[in-house]
Amino acid sequence: MLELNRNNLSPFVAAEEYEVLHPRLVAAHQSLLQKSGAGNNYLGWRDLLGSSASALLEELESTAAEIRERADVLVCIGIGGSYLGAQAVIAALTPHLTRPEGSPEILFAGHHLSGSYHQELLRYLEGKSVYVNVISKSGTTLEPAIAFRLLRNWMHDTFEDADRRIIVTTDPDRGKLNELRDVHGYRRYVIPADVGGRFSVLTPVGLLPIAAAGVDIRALFRGAVEMCDLLVTNEDNVALEYAAARYLLHEKGYSVDALAVLEPRLYGIARWWQQLFGESEGKNHRGLFPVMVQYTTDLHSIGQYMQDGQRRVIETFLMERQVSDTLVVPEVDGPPDGLEYLTGQRLSAVNQKAYEGTARAHLNGGVPNMTITIDSLEAVSIGRLIYFFEHAVAVGGYLLGVNPFDQPGVEDYKAEMYKLLGRS
Amino acid sequence: MLELNRNNLSPFVAAEEYEVLHPRLVAAHQSLLQKSGAGNNYLGWRDLLGSSASALLEELESTAAEIRERADVLVCIGIGGSYLGAQAVIAALTPHLTRPEGSPEILFAGHHLSGSYHQELLRYLEGKSVYVNVISKSGTTLEPAIAFRLLRNWMHDTFEDADRRIIVTTDPDRGKLNELRDVHGYRRYVIPADVGGRFSVLTPVGLLPIAAAGVDIRALFRGAVEMCDLLVTNEDNVALEYAAARYLLHEKGYSVDALAVLEPRLYGIARWWQQLFGESEGKNHRGLFPVMVQYTTDLHSIGQYMQDGQRRVIETFLMERQVSDTLVVPEVDGPPDGLEYLTGQRLSAVNQKAYEGTARAHLNGGVPNMTITIDSLEAVSIGRLIYFFEHAVAVGGYLLGVNPFDQPGVEDYKAEMYKLLGRS
Repeated sequence: MLELNRNNLSPFVAAEEYEVLHPRLVAAHQSLLQKSGAGNNYLGWRDLLGSSASALLEELESTAAEIRERADVLVCIGIGGSYLGAQAVIAALTPHLTRPEGSPEILFAGHHLSGSYHQELLRYLEGKSVYVNVISKSGTTLEPAIAFRLLRNWMHDTFEDADRRIIVTTDPDRGKLNELRDVHGYRRYVIPADVGGRFSVLTPVGLLPIAAAGVDIRALFRGAVEMCDLLVTNEDNVALEYAAARYLLHEKGYSVDALAVLEPRLYGIARWWQQLFGESEGKNHRGLFPVMVQYTTDLHSIGQYMQDGQRRVIETFLMERQVSDTLVVPEVDGPPDGLEYLTGQRLSAVNQKAYEGTARAHLNGGVPNMTITIDSLEAVSIGRLIYFFEHAVAVGGYLLGVNPFDQPGVEDYKAEMYKLLGRS
Repeated sequence: MLELNRNNLSPFVAAEEYEVLHPRLVAAHQSLLQKSGAGNNYLGWRDLLGSSASALLEELESTAAEIRERADVLVCIGIGGSYLGAQAVIAALTPHLTRPEGSPEILFAGHHLSGSYHQELLRYLEGKSVYVNVISKSGTTLEPAIAFRLLRNWMHDTFEDADRRIIVTTDPDRGKLNELRDVHGYRRYVIPADVGGRFSVLTPVGLLPIAAAGVDIRALFRGAVEMCDLLVTNEDNVALEYAAARYLLHEKGYSVDALAVLEPRLYGIARWWQQLFGESEGKNHRGLFPVMVQYTTDLHSIGQYMQDGQRRVIETFLMERQVSDTLVVPEVDGPPDGLEYLTGQRLSAVNQKAYEGTARAHLNGGVPNMTITIDSLEAVSIGRLIYFFEHAVAVGGYLLGVNPFDQPGVEDYKAEMYKLLGRS
């Protein structure tokens, strides 16, 4: 299912420390389950897994099928939680360089203010069949709103059926996108009012782009439901074990939490995790700074630091148990290249040893590390993983004494920026 | 040229602290200039800028012209310093979505052990005209050596003139790639023996792929030479000012150094910087953990943490003075979308205000921050920036009391991994 191995924490966290924490951990967990904690009006990400979603999933699949049939490119306009989940799941479950027959290219826009990127995007779209999915609760978040102005004009100038090609994902009632929809008749999907952006990947926010990319959203959703059902216990609960370990290390003065993947396709999941944990826990001058690393790539960049820099970093490896690819180190002609001992071995087996060697070396170097293992790079496993992290961060936030569901600090830069931009 | 603004450090670092540090800063600088510090046999990255490089640059340009004429794809095989510099400069100076007429696609391989990636890459290359540049000092580094086995077989099976299409960049004398070259007659470029991987972007390691991508390597090189000439003084020296600020903040207990870009094309530079600083300074349980962030994107993910998480993070913005793109927020029909106050403004102007607002908000939130401003996204400016960082990290390493030019910790995971793989 999903395993957590904390063995490599043992020199840093004693068994008694977990025991002493246990009552507080259970209390934190209960305030999530019983909806009695801070931010309890934002627990829709749990509720939606308990209700029958089949009508919604069917509708999303039908729209996705239309996009797949008619579009060369789907442009998703959104920032933060409005694109990180979709990007993560699509990167994990679809090829990077080649695109399967009948799959549109999924591009993202409105996730920054670069003029050169958006200019190039408009050039790139020329001559292609394009659909746009604009994803924003308020419709007024600066980056996606600007991108949507650019793309809306372009779509209406380019396609007679632009109204059909533009799909909005937004608040059930309020917001500028609903007003636009009333005028144009754009199709609309709803972001439940009680689900925050970083918890929204299993709502239409994530599910429509993910389905358009050809991923089995029913399997993804089912995985999350399974994990949600599993994690209601207070004992033998992997999410609680993960939250407890991170909390105890935080209290010991660690500052940085690195999520390490050894398969590049999982890097997007680490980016999504970075928002989930950074935005949920980074409050009141507390929380671990979440960073993602990709090994073995980054062992040749940040590896020296991990091994021997300031000892304030903890690390979690994210691995998959079954690797489907079968590529082996081939035989080769010519003079010996020093790899003879590896001939015929699968790359995935070598990668596994690289992970084991790294975990051991970092342990010896004084880096507390643990490992999350999922079954495989398949939709159901990714669904489980998503819910696991969501559950864990909620409990982790409560342990830290913060509201895991708000993000008041995000407003500060906006306020300063809007002042400078002269918005009334 | 290149400016450093430290105003937003003033609440955190007093003017007297810089003064007290000054003699040590000058001493650290002198040990770089006079080659009297630790690792002084690895200062070739400075020497190569002092000698006439025109013959080498001409040869690289000629090879690059052949690649540009004949190849659809150039695959660069290398890890760490053998690809991060090229990737960074190419991303900064060439378009992302569209490729200029006559430019081959530049892909990277051998920078991790993912079987699925390398399998997909081989599939993707089918039917295309491919050149390969394999970049490795020893030729036996695991990741590139495996990738080169795979690609070497494929190239020789696919192209009659594979010997011409494979180019090695390696040690002047030793290593497996030289042995292979003796057999096949591959073209070869040399990595100077006194230049470490992370300082090698201005050698053939970086310059050949960069030239193949269509970047003006003479301008890049000239920028670095200019900056090298400029930074010999002990006063009014931006690299020393940057090194001093980082060092003083390190000594105050800060743990994380975030390099923030507001133009996505600069993100690769931040990745290259991460290796340069992490691998040079992260020793003896010292150094700031270098992370890259892309704004405004990541203000919607890690922004909450920056504003209000553990106060152990410092931040440097990397900005460009002249932005060439002219995209504006367009007029649009329909109901008001809340952006009326921005109509007609350039995106780059809005992005600039986002930067200013963020720097101010983070200052108010207790994040010491400074800003590096380069002239523009042009080769000469990027060349200056590269040398600026190289000079600064050398001085910074000396201030910390470490050898900025070795990386002993990188061997630890390799030793553990090789044990597990059964290498004798």
